[in-house]
Amino acid sequence: MDMRQLVGENFGRLRREKGLTQEQVEAQTGFSQQYLSGLERGQRNPTVVTLFELAQALGVNPADFLKSKDGG
Amino acid sequence: MDMRQLVGENFGRLRREKGLTQEQVEAQTGFSQQYLSGLERGQRNPTVVTLFELAQALGVNPADFLKSKDGG
Repeated sequence: MDMRQLVGENFGRLRREKGLTQEQVEAQTGFSQQYLSGLERGQRNPTVVTLFELAQALGVNPADFLKSKDGG
Repeated sequence: MDMRQLVGENFGRLRREKGLTQEQVEAQTGFSQQYLSGLERGQRNPTVVTLFELAQALGVNPADFLKSKDGG
């Protein structure tokens, strides 16, 4: 699976599980709603520092964004 | 812990566990030995696509690079 797709899907799923909107994550992190929307559509290639900042905002582990559905 | 440090330490440890030199990883991935050396010293901020390519070369999961020592 493409890593951008995987990270985007995981980020979107975790964000919704936490009950947060893209706008609320923007307010917490400074990453724009447009950036976050593109991320969730698999159009972004975030760095590990970006993953860390997004994970902090959601209260999850950065590694959670890289986990594949089949448990990898 | 700084994400760059964490990823660099994990990459270096896993590379050594696999018995590979930085030069061998360069040959497999195209990332230069200088880049890989900087990565292992925590001086690089790789993207998720880079993590994927490095993970392929080592035969590990990209998420392994983000795991903290205390099991996070």
